[in-house]
Amino acid sequence: MLTKSQIKLIISLKQKKFRIQHQLFVVEGLKVVQEFLNSDYVLEDIFATDDHFSQYEQNLTRVDLKELSKISGFSTPNKVVATFKIPSPNSINWSSLVLALDGINDPGNLGTIIRLCDWFGIENLVCSEDTVDCYNPKVVQASMGSHTRVNITYIDLKTTLSSVSNCMGTFMDGVSIYEQELPKSGVIVLGNEANGISENIEALMHTRLSIPRFGKFKQTESLNVANAAAIILSEFKR
Amino acid sequence: MLTKSQIKLIISLKQKKFRIQHQLFVVEGLKVVQEFLNSDYVLEDIFATDDHFSQYEQNLTRVDLKELSKISGFSTPNKVVATFKIPSPNSINWSSLVLALDGINDPGNLGTIIRLCDWFGIENLVCSEDTVDCYNPKVVQASMGSHTRVNITYIDLKTTLSSVSNCMGTFMDGVSIYEQELPKSGVIVLGNEANGISENIEALMHTRLSIPRFGKFKQTESLNVANAAAIILSEFKR
Repeated sequence: MLTKSQIKLIISLKQKKFRIQHQLFVVEGLKVVQEFLNSDYVLEDIFATDDHFSQYEQNLTRVDLKELSKISGFSTPNKVVATFKIPSPNSINWSSLVLALDGINDPGNLGTIIRLCDWFGIENLVCSEDTVDCYNPKVVQASMGSHTRVNITYIDLKTTLSSVSNCMGTFMDGVSIYEQELPKSGVIVLGNEANGISENIEALMHTRLSIPRFGKFKQTESLNVANAAAIILSEFKR
Repeated sequence: MLTKSQIKLIISLKQKKFRIQHQLFVVEGLKVVQEFLNSDYVLEDIFATDDHFSQYEQNLTRVDLKELSKISGFSTPNKVVATFKIPSPNSINWSSLVLALDGINDPGNLGTIIRLCDWFGIENLVCSEDTVDCYNPKVVQASMGSHTRVNITYIDLKTTLSSVSNCMGTFMDGVSIYEQELPKSGVIVLGNEANGISENIEALMHTRLSIPRFGKFKQTESLNVANAAAIILSEFKR
């Protein structure tokens, strides 16, 4: 049985200010909730329609489908909604390959990029403070559990990158990633969907990288940032 | 001034059966409409709020923002909605590199893949008959005008691929794309978002390709199909 205050709390967590206030975020669906349960994330509450989660008895509220749909962000809720505590990020290993995002706005793009980091073994993702919140429910769903294997930190990108010795920015006019010797460590920077890397960050880049455009027309305006991330991470790791 | 029958027609074109019946599809927004106008696509009607399109006088209906919002699929309409005739696909050049899609469902994924074909100079995209319609408005918007530079054909994939000499399917357990000599021609096949390549198509593959997973966890379930397309096309073209 769901209480009114539980419903109100969970719905409020769609908004960043309430996630910060309560230090909680929402995860939905059997598979993704299970990934968070198997990780270091700390469970707060779990609301489920079946007995699959009986081992979490202390935190478990059994609900029916009608109740679940009141707290779900899905049009067809998938058996479970859970809240987890927002963790403190771990320290960043700057001697590995780090991905930095400068002002990514779209939750689907950020979720996909987290999933790509997980696939390519990028353990540290740093985001400018104006990048969309990684605990936004759309980001959590798009990353499909990859949050649990990628250390995500929000930082003042300008100050932080000022002291990094190998910053590689991605631009339309950089050196081809296919022709450049790509290092095993350093920071790869991807910019905002519409405007690319901001000017004050651009000034800090040691290398300007680019994904060459093929085809006889060469009119495609740009690649989606998540696709650019996919191509660049593949090229660094191959 | 918009007539009721114009409004009814344009709204009906969200549905495939009416697109087929009228042989028309909808394009929105200044930039994308301009790309279609500059191409071989044949304009039917154009509804615009400003004088930008006065050279298309014969097909032009001037509307106000309130009228535009009645026919727009956007929450904030961008100055213009146009309808174009659905063209007959051109013949396929099988001696080039062709991309084939087996049952892609998500309009955003198809739109992104069309944009990637354009970027990487893949001139022919063939789709199984159960792949989402490329004139679905969400596909048209996601491809951002790349339709005008990629020849898209819906075919019986099984029959067609039976007579192709070099079919390369993408699987979780194939040979690494980084270790395989990749040819300049042939057909690369990508499968459905949830189920991959269907069994009857899988049987026709000459090569099984795979994108290796890095990182110490190796639990990421799969890559989004548009990201997989990005990585694979980059690897073929580099």
